[in-house]
Amino acid sequence: MTVLILTCEQDVTADMVVAELDGTGVPVVRLDPADLPGPVALSGEYVHGAFRGHLSVGGRLVSMNGLRSVWVRRPGVPASRVAEPTDWLTEESAQALYGMLRSTDARWMNHPDAARRARHKPWQLHLAQRSRLPVPATLITTFPQAARDFADRFPDLVVKPVSGAHPQEPPRAVPTSRVAPDADFAAVAYGPTLLQRRVAKRADIRLTCVGDRIHAARKAVDPDADPDEVDVRFATSDAPWRPADVPSCIAAGVVTYLREAQLAYGAFDFAEDAEGMWWFLECNQSGQFGFVQIESGQPIARTVADWLSAPTPPATPTNGGRAWLLEGH
Amino acid sequence: MTVLILTCEQDVTADMVVAELDGTGVPVVRLDPADLPGPVALSGEYVHGAFRGHLSVGGRLVSMNGLRSVWVRRPGVPASRVAEPTDWLTEESAQALYGMLRSTDARWMNHPDAARRARHKPWQLHLAQRSRLPVPATLITTFPQAARDFADRFPDLVVKPVSGAHPQEPPRAVPTSRVAPDADFAAVAYGPTLLQRRVAKRADIRLTCVGDRIHAARKAVDPDADPDEVDVRFATSDAPWRPADVPSCIAAGVVTYLREAQLAYGAFDFAEDAEGMWWFLECNQSGQFGFVQIESGQPIARTVADWLSAPTPPATPTNGGRAWLLEGH
Repeated sequence: MTVLILTCEQDVTADMVVAELDGTGVPVVRLDPADLPGPVALSGEYVHGAFRGHLSVGGRLVSMNGLRSVWVRRPGVPASRVAEPTDWLTEESAQALYGMLRSTDARWMNHPDAARRARHKPWQLHLAQRSRLPVPATLITTFPQAARDFADRFPDLVVKPVSGAHPQEPPRAVPTSRVAPDADFAAVAYGPTLLQRRVAKRADIRLTCVGDRIHAARKAVDPDADPDEVDVRFATSDAPWRPADVPSCIAAGVVTYLREAQLAYGAFDFAEDAEGMWWFLECNQSGQFGFVQIESGQPIARTVADWLSAPTPPATPTNGGRAWLLEGH
Repeated sequence: MTVLILTCEQDVTADMVVAELDGTGVPVVRLDPADLPGPVALSGEYVHGAFRGHLSVGGRLVSMNGLRSVWVRRPGVPASRVAEPTDWLTEESAQALYGMLRSTDARWMNHPDAARRARHKPWQLHLAQRSRLPVPATLITTFPQAARDFADRFPDLVVKPVSGAHPQEPPRAVPTSRVAPDADFAAVAYGPTLLQRRVAKRADIRLTCVGDRIHAARKAVDPDADPDEVDVRFATSDAPWRPADVPSCIAAGVVTYLREAQLAYGAFDFAEDAEGMWWFLECNQSGQFGFVQIESGQPIARTVADWLSAPTPPATPTNGGRAWLLEGH
């Protein structure tokens, strides 16, 4: 049973996991959907009530029914490396490849549908609440008056994008910023705005959860840091990421979150306040882990490799033989 | 509890359903996401572990927690009617609107994730097989030799797109065509190709399934019709759509299909062969029903209105209190 990794050629994170998979005896196939059609070929037949599919990569033939797991790491756009790329050929190739892979019994890290859903910040906040993770008070609105009322109740606010990175080429991360006390919220009417109570934090937490295995790392905030520096991605801290113990209620919450989101992998960001409480900020289903592993020494690539190479888990009472369908959601 | 209809202004099909909903006493709100922000406004608050959201349309305020159902009919692109549309504002507005709606308990016709998944033709074919619907032998391939072998086994073939309509503006339907007996399959290497055994049909079947209620209509093929006319959308038949009785195994199959696909609505196309067997061709989760209702006299709009306005069904043993999550797949 083969592990299939969908990613582009230059991907150090995938290299780290492939190195861990080497020597396990589990066959690994790595391909970039950008190479379909061409170096990557496929074929699937629906005859006599059954589906049989094959992938070919560099002359190596793999049965789709023999796939153990699929890691959707950083795949290229299907058919983007043909001589004359078109939207039509990309669509045909994407539907053929992912449509067939969806018909297999392979486990996904992460399933494309679950991954897509998991990007919705409003949905993340609600799922975190339901998973009993502490969520700072948050408002998403196009009503200026609602923003003003919220700022009266929670005077110390940050503003961040609803959707994440700005979709330019290459995508640009939009930093979380502090809201000035005398902010005028009239412009809220021109675009949905996400306001959140600022957590006066003493550390950033990056928690990586793979199945039900958790690695948490902590980066202390300099006590003299500028309180306007709210976004760890843009902060100037020299503190390293260090392994951290996970409070049991947080551990239970993130496992619930991933299970309900039908994700195999999630990178959670928390802010630790002065009392040690971890506040949920977001869960990135495709979050990087290389930088945390290197600084904290935690074996995250090993954990990912273990998940990918594990034998298919036995059917559980809740999904039974319908795992292929539930996983397809 | 309100029915929310997401569609553009000019939508005769939505008009038919709204006319049926009128007089039921069930409140209906119709809006076009293209009008957000602007005529459509929203606000959602995450405080004390709970989510409370509101929509405003033309000055009317609707609680998101009071939504009974959401019909995703033909919605415009969010934020496309603002003075200066941008991809960024569209993304922010889409995530805010759909992200909040995903956090409600409303039932969806159809949920965006289920709708997206349901468009994958290879997945459709496999689900139809698993639902015990007869599927004509089909091959999707980029291997010329696989295509030649398939044509040897099934000499009378049609070719059709893997992904459906060509994504030009406006989208262009790509007709299903007959494959010439002496076809050269070398070009298959340049793009995934879907080949299917041609069903020598005596009628086309359009089966509309809403929840577990089925309306089937049949359009006879002229016995003198050109056998190269395989695509009902492009055929010149004068025969009208007439109500048809549904074989019990087909009825069971389509209900299974919709349930497993987590769709509330599906328009199935079948080809009826000379022996009366119905062969599954595809299931369009957004298929039109106006033309069938008008010719066949079947009350499809009424059935859709009934589904949308029904009280929330009691939790079933398989989804229990987690319906909001399962429906979010």
